[in-house]
Amino acid sequence: MNDTIKLLQSHRSIRKFEERDIPKSLLRELVCSGQAAATSSHIQAYSIIHVTNKELRNQLVELTGGQKYVASSSDFLVFCADMKRPLEAAKSTGENAVSGMTEQLLVATVDVSLVAQNIAIAAESKGLGICYIGGIRNNPQAVSDMLSLPQHVYPVFGMCIGYPAHDPDIKPRLPVEAVLKENNYSDDTEYVNAFNLTMYHYYQARKGGNKMSNWSQNLAPLFNQKLRSHMQAFLVEKGFEMK
Amino acid sequence: MNDTIKLLQSHRSIRKFEERDIPKSLLRELVCSGQAAATSSHIQAYSIIHVTNKELRNQLVELTGGQKYVASSSDFLVFCADMKRPLEAAKSTGENAVSGMTEQLLVATVDVSLVAQNIAIAAESKGLGICYIGGIRNNPQAVSDMLSLPQHVYPVFGMCIGYPAHDPDIKPRLPVEAVLKENNYSDDTEYVNAFNLTMYHYYQARKGGNKMSNWSQNLAPLFNQKLRSHMQAFLVEKGFEMK
Repeated sequence: MNDTIKLLQSHRSIRKFEERDIPKSLLRELVCSGQAAATSSHIQAYSIIHVTNKELRNQLVELTGGQKYVASSSDFLVFCADMKRPLEAAKSTGENAVSGMTEQLLVATVDVSLVAQNIAIAAESKGLGICYIGGIRNNPQAVSDMLSLPQHVYPVFGMCIGYPAHDPDIKPRLPVEAVLKENNYSDDTEYVNAFNLTMYHYYQARKGGNKMSNWSQNLAPLFNQKLRSHMQAFLVEKGFEMK
Repeated sequence: MNDTIKLLQSHRSIRKFEERDIPKSLLRELVCSGQAAATSSHIQAYSIIHVTNKELRNQLVELTGGQKYVASSSDFLVFCADMKRPLEAAKSTGENAVSGMTEQLLVATVDVSLVAQNIAIAAESKGLGICYIGGIRNNPQAVSDMLSLPQHVYPVFGMCIGYPAHDPDIKPRLPVEAVLKENNYSDDTEYVNAFNLTMYHYYQARKGGNKMSNWSQNLAPLFNQKLRSHMQAFLVEKGFEMK
């Protein structure tokens, strides 16, 4: 196991940060590392909004569900799937340009995710900690208004970055046998059952607050309601019609 | 710039591979590194199909648009967004479980992308090369049939992994100023114009075959037609109704 693989395997989300700013030059280096990720047909269908305004940061705490580290981390980035730039580039050649395809939504969502994960790895390699903020999709229209996101751009997730002020445990993952299948999709119930036990023990022993639960029980509340049911209409309104 | 950041910034897709197999234990280490990526609410909404059957590999060359390295790389992985496992886990607690939400499509697509990018980085740290295969979405139904992908699972992209047998140039990226914006979405036309010139010169000078083109001209054919227009109906059929 080399140092990079050790780094990858030691990831945990950081939610408490030192009051210490990341140098601007370092943040730029992280973003350049992000841009080096693979991109579908070189389309680079993403934009990153670096939210430096304190008042906006405080508003984002509320909009993402009260996660205080959205304001207290050194930096906060909003990762946007951006089909506007490539669409306009295509149009500038005099060609007709089709928008709103489901395929385009997928391409841009994957593109921005690869960039973000590279930034996460680069940050962690520099001793920083990160936390993805899916809560940016709690109020995507308000976030879009705040950041003046145009048509064909949507906020996929945020990311807190800063110097860690705590040392949480690494959360277990499903057994590799559950997620890695050979030649066809095979049943993984036995591995999920084993993992439920793993998580039950993890939640009882972990540093940051114990609870009586397992993986399946933890997931149930994500599915017994229509979570973020506004996303479909929001995306259509933004020009991602999923045609 | 540390070694990890150097590694990230030296990425290029590899499309020619040595006839040399990756040890099974190393492939497993790469996948474990992938699993360590952040995952939305710990949902781990992905499965990876490792296609080891030679006949299936050859069929996949055709299904992905004739990319021979899909068969000639040491290993080929099909990355699937997998909502089946978490849905069934949630149901197993006796709760009702809602499927088909647009939000769920996004969560699973992001989740599998973060895993894949970690695997790409881990592979490159071991001297391997990779190539993402978006062409897996050329014929997603045929791929799904071949790999027996059940409802609520869809193939997002493939990945070739192996020992590089060529040394292609690193492809330029948009200026960081184009993609990194402060507090609001700002116009990036001047950076795109500069980048068109960068790419024009790159395509004239690169090792692997010259052409007269720039970034905008390259993108035009992606937008003057309804590329992969089957994706919407395919996803709905697979239980991703985008509600």
